[in-house]
Amino acid sequence: MVVPLQTDITAIADSIYAVWVLVICFLIFFMQPGFALLEAGQVRARNAANVFMKNLMDWSLGVLVFFLLGSGLAGVVAQATSSSAIDIGSAFAYLADPAGGSMVWINWFFGAVFAMTAATIVSGAVAGRMNFKAYVVTAVAMTAIIYPVSLGLTWKGGLLSLGGGGYLADAIGAGYQDFAGATVVHALGGIAGLTAAAMIGPRKGRFDEDGNARAIPGHSVLLAMLGTLFLAFGWYGFNVGTQATVLSGSTLSNMAFEGQALGRVLLNTTLAMGIGAVASTAVTTIWEGKPDPLFAANGLLAGLVAITGACAHVTWYGALIIGLIGGIQTPFVYRWVVDSLKIDDVCGVFAVHGSAGFIGTILIPVFDTSGFSMDQLIMQIAGSAIIGTWGVVGTIITLGIVGLFMDLRVSEAEEMEGLDQSEHGLSAYPEFGTDEGAPVADGGPEKMTDGGSDLEEEA
Amino acid sequence: MVVPLQTDITAIADSIYAVWVLVICFLIFFMQPGFALLEAGQVRARNAANVFMKNLMDWSLGVLVFFLLGSGLAGVVAQATSSSAIDIGSAFAYLADPAGGSMVWINWFFGAVFAMTAATIVSGAVAGRMNFKAYVVTAVAMTAIIYPVSLGLTWKGGLLSLGGGGYLADAIGAGYQDFAGATVVHALGGIAGLTAAAMIGPRKGRFDEDGNARAIPGHSVLLAMLGTLFLAFGWYGFNVGTQATVLSGSTLSNMAFEGQALGRVLLNTTLAMGIGAVASTAVTTIWEGKPDPLFAANGLLAGLVAITGACAHVTWYGALIIGLIGGIQTPFVYRWVVDSLKIDDVCGVFAVHGSAGFIGTILIPVFDTSGFSMDQLIMQIAGSAIIGTWGVVGTIITLGIVGLFMDLRVSEAEEMEGLDQSEHGLSAYPEFGTDEGAPVADGGPEKMTDGGSDLEEEA
Amino acid sequence: MVVPLQTDITAIADSIYAVWVLVICFLIFFMQPGFALLEAGQVRARNAANVFMKNLMDWSLGVLVFFLLGSGLAGVVAQATSSSAIDIGSAFAYLADPAGGSMVWINWFFGAVFAMTAATIVSGAVAGRMNFKAYVVTAVAMTAIIYPVSLGLTWKGGLLSLGGGGYLADAIGAGYQDFAGATVVHALGGIAGLTAAAMIGPRKGRFDEDGNARAIPGHSVLLAMLGTLFLAFGWYGFNVGTQATVLSGSTLSNMAFEGQALGRVLLNTTLAMGIGAVASTAVTTIWEGKPDPLFAANGLLAGLVAITGACAHVTWYGALIIGLIGGIQTPFVYRWVVDSLKIDDVCGVFAVHGSAGFIGTILIPVFDTSGFSMDQLIMQIAGSAIIGTWGVVGTIITLGIVGLFMDLRVSEAEEMEGLDQSEHGLSAYPEFGTDEGAPVADGGPEKMTDGGSDLEEEA
Repeated sequence: MVVPLQTDITAIADSIYAVWVLVICFLIFFMQPGFALLEAGQVRARNAANVFMKNLMDWSLGVLVFFLLGSGLAGVVAQATSSSAIDIGSAFAYLADPAGGSMVWINWFFGAVFAMTAATIVSGAVAGRMNFKAYVVTAVAMTAIIYPVSLGLTWKGGLLSLGGGGYLADAIGAGYQDFAGATVVHALGGIAGLTAAAMIGPRKGRFDEDGNARAIPGHSVLLAMLGTLFLAFGWYGFNVGTQATVLSGSTLSNMAFEGQALGRVLLNTTLAMGIGAVASTAVTTIWEGKPDPLFAANGLLAGLVAITGACAHVTWYGALIIGLIGGIQTPFVYRWVVDSLKIDDVCGVFAVHGSAGFIGTILIPVFDTSGFSMDQLIMQIAGSAIIGTWGVVGTIITLGIVGLFMDLRVSEAEEMEGLDQSEHGLSAYPEFGTDEGAPVADGGPEKMTDGGSDLEEEA
Repeated sequence: MVVPLQTDITAIADSIYAVWVLVICFLIFFMQPGFALLEAGQVRARNAANVFMKNLMDWSLGVLVFFLLGSGLAGVVAQATSSSAIDIGSAFAYLADPAGGSMVWINWFFGAVFAMTAATIVSGAVAGRMNFKAYVVTAVAMTAIIYPVSLGLTWKGGLLSLGGGGYLADAIGAGYQDFAGATVVHALGGIAGLTAAAMIGPRKGRFDEDGNARAIPGHSVLLAMLGTLFLAFGWYGFNVGTQATVLSGSTLSNMAFEGQALGRVLLNTTLAMGIGAVASTAVTTIWEGKPDPLFAANGLLAGLVAITGACAHVTWYGALIIGLIGGIQTPFVYRWVVDSLKIDDVCGVFAVHGSAGFIGTILIPVFDTSGFSMDQLIMQIAGSAIIGTWGVVGTIITLGIVGLFMDLRVSEAEEMEGLDQSEHGLSAYPEFGTDEGAPVADGGPEKMTDGGSDLEEEA
Repeated sequence: MVVPLQTDITAIADSIYAVWVLVICFLIFFMQPGFALLEAGQVRARNAANVFMKNLMDWSLGVLVFFLLGSGLAGVVAQATSSSAIDIGSAFAYLADPAGGSMVWINWFFGAVFAMTAATIVSGAVAGRMNFKAYVVTAVAMTAIIYPVSLGLTWKGGLLSLGGGGYLADAIGAGYQDFAGATVVHALGGIAGLTAAAMIGPRKGRFDEDGNARAIPGHSVLLAMLGTLFLAFGWYGFNVGTQATVLSGSTLSNMAFEGQALGRVLLNTTLAMGIGAVASTAVTTIWEGKPDPLFAANGLLAGLVAITGACAHVTWYGALIIGLIGGIQTPFVYRWVVDSLKIDDVCGVFAVHGSAGFIGTILIPVFDTSGFSMDQLIMQIAGSAIIGTWGVVGTIITLGIVGLFMDLRVSEAEEMEGLDQSEHGLSAYPEFGTDEGAPVADGGPEKMTDGGSDLEEEA
């Protein structure tokens, strides 16, 4: 009578996995409009369509590049930095079957939505002056090489992965912990954005003659806050969905519901998001005398980034502390980047995605439900340093090469005209207001698209 | 050969439950941007960021408060108003395990997204003049006390719950029916909003010297309608997800698919939403001569509210009738609040969430699939009266206390300047138009945020 | 010991089916705000609320009509065009049980969200001049008759269905392949929109005295692009969800996970969307010298439409080629409609939903994973021709009859004033800008809604 208990339920477990993972991947996809709005709201109206277009292109081109190259390259990186043998064929095996294997393409897509998140963060840092073509090439590099290296070193089983036999993990005796990608995805994108913003230089007028920062208000705080809520929605997919296994085991007798893991990730994500927003708001209220909506939004996001790597590992009060730190540091790091580093990181992607991600991930061992481990802390610092360094180096190399072939930023005249007009020949809002302080695009409306441009007339 | 049929499938049932409940909770979270847009679209541009900020804060602070206090208090209220013994420890047991129990935190989150929905409704009634700090304290009271009492009296097993041994339910011999919270959540929020709007007083200019209402058009009908569709999307989670059990039973032999329950809730929600919009549009077309988009949207929402408590209980033609009534009453109740009560309920939250919720819930026994019950009707009226009374009393107490420590509304000068500028030091749309009829915020743009405010410069 | 392996797991399979199908239906519902934004962004600000209102109404009225009539009629059409006997009672059986059967209403809703997608496409073609009442009646016809016929001929088992004994399918020996409705849903809507746009005539000023097209720029490229990303999100539900069966089989021994089918649909949808956007952008960059954001968006959508019918059938490189063609043809077909046909299809719904859908569906046999079949190609051409012809004929009959009772378009004065003002008595953005080139609506703001209109004052 033991036999039935050993009945194979793999098909049931796989089905539950697939439904869960597919749905949360769709939620993670929804971070794309989230980022597009968050960034568009923080730029002048004359650059809003350009920012949106950059986001649309990094997704569209990114999925192709990550399919044909990036995903496989991550596997090769993992092989090369671990005890695994290098086997390019197996790394790219997902391309081999034109009709698709059972779980292969679902898992590829699961990886792709994370890759596209890393790529899309950069556009927020370089908004308002980066050449569109140079941005597109950079986005290709992000999805073809920069993110795949980060992925290969970690989740794919490379250098920092204990289970994968990664060289550094073996040496330290601890694998790098970053559950849903606070550093593998977010801080990589955040530091790449910071590096790119530094290389491209600030927007005209961002700093006065004495080098003091001058605010360039975004054209819609409302759209930026709306994008923030979209991101929070998608983030539930990002974090909770990373606990992809809901039903573990493969027979009726050894199956188990992974409710504790799911619940912990869910609660920690929620608490860190809440306290991140509250903390950042409190700091700006003390500092400025009034609660700042944009820092409330950015604090919420920084709380999410900070807990993204930690959410599966830490206690709920650990999550509160990590989210609190994530929120508090946001305005300080933002000001430090602007005022000390003199870098025009338009949407504050380093403060929100970079520093918050590193801090939260390094703190994991301090609040781990299974207690503190010095080896783990060493690994967290080492892993964060490696990913951060790669983000800087990879971006410098990429933009360095791109800069050999094209200008990294638009001309001063184009910047003043606005990138919507100079890069795309249109105005995002042809009927609304004027962009004070900038020359009004001459002849704008009659060149506009209308359910698509009037191509021939303009050609 | 009977043994295998008794095989425990709890892990499978739990997994299906968790996937379903988590996803629908994420949908319910999406009601937050829905409310934010619905409300922002209905206020002047100079108050849009303030409304959005209020929504962001009631979520962010609310989840913390509901975790640390509200959720547990609901349990205590349930114990105190039923035959259960009072045991504060068990009511707050979800806080005890720092690493999380199997289903505890998932179910806490399931409760939290409903709590945040109740809290966020209030901001729509008091938009355009309520002090930000006073609003934040009120939101804390909503998630710490006002909603938890409503929750404790009903779903948590208190006064109105037959299964929980609630005193009133035992006395009447019928438990209160409100499937997904038409009154427990929505009407509570709607009547709390109405009460708060009455206590704070109308926006300047809302009534002329003779006490006649003057319209203050919202700045974007489009955003309000977009928010409505977001809410409808989230509402599928709210209503259909409340049928949380998809697979019932715990062994292979007694398991059952709850398709009929799911299908009924789904269909009734859809029909009531559709006919609510059509009915409200028809009323305004007859009344004004033209179909009114904002009442179409509000009618759709009122149809949803009206069916929220009834959707699991009534026939499909019952759902059509309830949705029809919900839609028809919306413009009439809205005018009654404005013209007779002289209350400036900006977004009509009483007509949409309050009266629609009470009517729909009271009508449940009339259209119940299992036939009419007078005891049930008595209970529906009694329960609605109790929740409504509590909503009024709880809000009066809250705002009464808050008013001892701070002004409930901004000064007249601040109101004229707009709350975005006076409360947050910014303009939501620094490049678009001017807010006719109001003094243009002086010096606006140079104080604006830009990927976060220029804190030091302004300090 | 064989008995336990035959244990009935229908309840588990049904539960997984229901969770999956419900969630993806909610995603498909989210295409409603997607279409509303895509269309609103492409019209002048003075018509934006009207477009949104049309979308709200076609959903709200549409679900009622499709429930009471359309869904059943599709069954009758299927019976009448196949070897099935005509049995109106069985076709409308879903209405019979007031309390709902187990899977009946879930599956009705699954059908309804596809029907509403077809209906809502039309509004984009006729924006800016179609009479609101005439549009509403047309939307009723779409959901009551036009789409139900398309549905009946195909998925419901009629003329083109091999499994249903459809007369044509039997004759050709192949059933029509259109997995998720590239033609059954999208091309039907696209060609109905084109026909309606032709019958109603172009917007005033769309063509100059010599018949040359003049651009009428939409009021917000940003909203149009945002709507595009919403549609892509919903499309994952549309395409991947059409693979509704995740766990097949009904006993433990014959159950199977449908991962290959899911993965193929998922990957093909993603690749076609990406390359569609890139290809359309590339064409406009070559043509105009600058990448056009609106064509990037429309190319993404055309890539999605093109793969919608094919995604379950073709190889991944087939998906790339189909998406590529979908994207490339978009600007060319759009210009052909405007410049050669002289039809003012405002949002380019024929290029995006029509031609892309037909092309992608006809190409299925060319890239089929199981090899080329001439019979299948013949069936694809025949089926596309029948659906396309029906879309034209059904629309002509509908608008012909509607035109007997009311004007199909607003007066020239109303068009100049804008449909928001003339049809609904409001301005979508009362505080923003002016609609250059059009008379400003006089007395606008004081007539505006305000959390609902001031009905009595205006009556």
